[in-house]
Amino acid sequence: MSTIDPALIALERALGSGRVITDPDVLASYAVDESEVPPHPPEAAVRVKEAREVADVMRICSEHAVPVTPRAGGTGRTGGAVPLAGGVVLAFEQMTRIKGIEEEDLIAVVEPGVVLGELHRAVEALGLFYPPDPNSLASCTLGGNVAENAGGPRALRYGCTRDYVLGLRVVTADGTELSVGKRTVKGVTGYDLTSLLVGSEGTLAITTEITLKLLPKPESVVTMMVLLPDLVSAGRAVTGVLRRGILPRCMELLDEATLAIVRPETSLPISEAARALLLIELDGEAGALETQLERAGNAVMEAGASDVLVARHGGERDKLWAARRELSRALRKRARYKLAEDVVVPRSRIAALIETCQGISQRSKIAMPSYGHAGDGNIHVNFLWNDPSEEPVVHAAIEEMFKAVIALGGTLTGEHGIGVLKAPFLPLEQAPELIALQERVKTLFDPKNILNPGKIFPSHVAKFHGAC
Amino acid sequence: MSTIDPALIALERALGSGRVITDPDVLASYAVDESEVPPHPPEAAVRVKEAREVADVMRICSEHAVPVTPRAGGTGRTGGAVPLAGGVVLAFEQMTRIKGIEEEDLIAVVEPGVVLGELHRAVEALGLFYPPDPNSLASCTLGGNVAENAGGPRALRYGCTRDYVLGLRVVTADGTELSVGKRTVKGVTGYDLTSLLVGSEGTLAITTEITLKLLPKPESVVTMMVLLPDLVSAGRAVTGVLRRGILPRCMELLDEATLAIVRPETSLPISEAARALLLIELDGEAGALETQLERAGNAVMEAGASDVLVARHGGERDKLWAARRELSRALRKRARYKLAEDVVVPRSRIAALIETCQGISQRSKIAMPSYGHAGDGNIHVNFLWNDPSEEPVVHAAIEEMFKAVIALGGTLTGEHGIGVLKAPFLPLEQAPELIALQERVKTLFDPKNILNPGKIFPSHVAKFHGAC
Repeated sequence: MSTIDPALIALERALGSGRVITDPDVLASYAVDESEVPPHPPEAAVRVKEAREVADVMRICSEHAVPVTPRAGGTGRTGGAVPLAGGVVLAFEQMTRIKGIEEEDLIAVVEPGVVLGELHRAVEALGLFYPPDPNSLASCTLGGNVAENAGGPRALRYGCTRDYVLGLRVVTADGTELSVGKRTVKGVTGYDLTSLLVGSEGTLAITTEITLKLLPKPESVVTMMVLLPDLVSAGRAVTGVLRRGILPRCMELLDEATLAIVRPETSLPISEAARALLLIELDGEAGALETQLERAGNAVMEAGASDVLVARHGGERDKLWAARRELSRALRKRARYKLAEDVVVPRSRIAALIETCQGISQRSKIAMPSYGHAGDGNIHVNFLWNDPSEEPVVHAAIEEMFKAVIALGGTLTGEHGIGVLKAPFLPLEQAPELIALQERVKTLFDPKNILNPGKIFPSHVAKFHGAC
Repeated sequence: MSTIDPALIALERALGSGRVITDPDVLASYAVDESEVPPHPPEAAVRVKEAREVADVMRICSEHAVPVTPRAGGTGRTGGAVPLAGGVVLAFEQMTRIKGIEEEDLIAVVEPGVVLGELHRAVEALGLFYPPDPNSLASCTLGGNVAENAGGPRALRYGCTRDYVLGLRVVTADGTELSVGKRTVKGVTGYDLTSLLVGSEGTLAITTEITLKLLPKPESVVTMMVLLPDLVSAGRAVTGVLRRGILPRCMELLDEATLAIVRPETSLPISEAARALLLIELDGEAGALETQLERAGNAVMEAGASDVLVARHGGERDKLWAARRELSRALRKRARYKLAEDVVVPRSRIAALIETCQGISQRSKIAMPSYGHAGDGNIHVNFLWNDPSEEPVVHAAIEEMFKAVIALGGTLTGEHGIGVLKAPFLPLEQAPELIALQERVKTLFDPKNILNPGKIFPSHVAKFHGAC
């Protein structure tokens, strides 16, 4: 009898027969997420149907000191949903209800298993708008979005998930059900535990219900594709648009190495001379957009743009976006191994960051195409390689890149979280006292360290995963 | 020799002679804020000049277990800056530097003593915008804004202080200097301690530097004054505007009792038939505003508005705002005693809340004019009375009002904080487990309970203040 068996027996008793999954094939599907963390199958999984069951699981696992890893869409990029310590996976794929959309109050209440794209469709059908739009929106779910504070291109104008989470129902490590936050857009009663829990990567509490703020849906959207001769011009274009008082919903950048990969795969006219591409998207009242478009056009031409393409309607806009949306996959095809970092620098330092990356790439011979959310300085720097023997070189290149990011006033991750993969680098950004304080917060919420153990903190990760 | 003397001697040694203020006249000025909490003079005060000094004060006060109350502008409405437990007031009135405004990165770095209105002027001169605008903006300071998560009318479109705080430099209870957060608009490295500290009312750490996100300044602003025959029409007007896809920067409401006070003091044509007034303010690109204005006008007329006045320029707009800006003072003149609550309800329930208040007012014979931020449901419910013997009736009326707010899905405070005055009511909104969890967070950050003791938590407040 394994040490986990008494817990599984208690779980089966509490939840009902057949509810505790131990089939190795099913468990294998819960062993990974969309990161490069190697598979770690859990010892059991429970597909919860309601908050009460989550409370039961946590109470029993707390009594037996069994690790619990919450899992929403499993689309995380840093290993947050990988059950490093084994134990029980708490899967939310059956908690998919949109419990309510309150049109007058601009609020939605959802379960953690709701797919983000489904929520977009539901609220947009009512003329409402939920801005966060990570690239995985067709499969990621709100529970994971909350755990990671998911962003996406529209974060430039609209912010990330945390900016829309008004309140949460959660279950704590010992199985206590709690409501934190509020149902109103304003409120300062007590400490903001809601914001603390958002982005805590499943290590402080388990979300069972999310109350989200909605916005009125913008009337019109227009997309511009801008070709530029170099990165410095692209940087000038980004700040030039903002300096004209325009706050686009998105400003996405593709660098030279990325363009070289995209060019043969797209029907878009991307000239050989273009060394940088910007996708700029504006939204708002239709009339105003034309004025803003003209001004944004002037700003990018002044910055040195060679071509500007404008798309006003759904289909045309999708065509401009297709290349951007498919980038992650297109890059993956180009090499056997790919690691994607999502660092952030102050937007004035984007050109400096990408030039630094080009230097690292030349010296290390590791391909490093970069693209991402230029408007908010959140750049996806990719590392592509084919030979496992290159891994130490890749690791050194990543570390050099992170050091450059910190020196430029940036941060390790804009939307993917620390998870497993970035934990070794946390001390590059944060002082030992700050890491220690966060570890004390973790212990306060989870004294037995059963909630998603082995994440975020270097010493926690090292226990299960080695030093990356 | 008092028990605090060894600490004061150590402080004088660390900071230099003459730096520890014990003059009773000066201490008396630090005994109150703009709330109704009775004066509690501290035993000493230090006007700090830099973070290093804050660290010295905290280290020494921690060693001697002396309470420390941080004080920024002293404009708080719930007693947050009143040194209930005596000890040392840490005054920030000399830390008033705007350390930098980075135009390209849309960031400002400020010390806690910077007056909000000064920051507005400095950034607007560069074509930039810092939205939070509490009514006290001419005297409140950024340190207090961060402690209370200050809002203001523009919160409807732009959010509150927390939405603009990217990072903080703080000193913890034991004197450790820490940087939390980031200098970029995005970033998910570790737990969001920044959001936890914002709004923690000086009970978790002391802020010494604030990094704020700025926006491009909106090109134009237009203000509408709308008169309505009743509250239900006003509620319909608010939701009607939002349902047309318009998100105004402000939608302020004055109820019938407030209008009765304002009418004789203003030159504005507010007819006797008007039972509710809305101030709606739109901002954005000039051309777009005209379209939005027309739509908003249609929405309020459809809701039953009798009159609509539009002001497009600074002076005219100020005239429409003057009555709203002066309300707090105008109400104060009407009675010997005034208490202002700032509850929030979902915006669809504003009419229900105000009708409930009218009922309480009729039964209790306490005048209860209400006004506030209708767009986000944050209503300032005032209680006016003249005879000290009425206090128990007022207290019962407040409790009845809070209970109604909670029943309507609302929260006790939208921007004033819990402080001293609202602490007795905290259990109306929050479960005992949630309050206990927050008390453990407090203990984690401040194990000796020396940081602004006697605030937020009912049992902490009761030690110094009785049961309100």
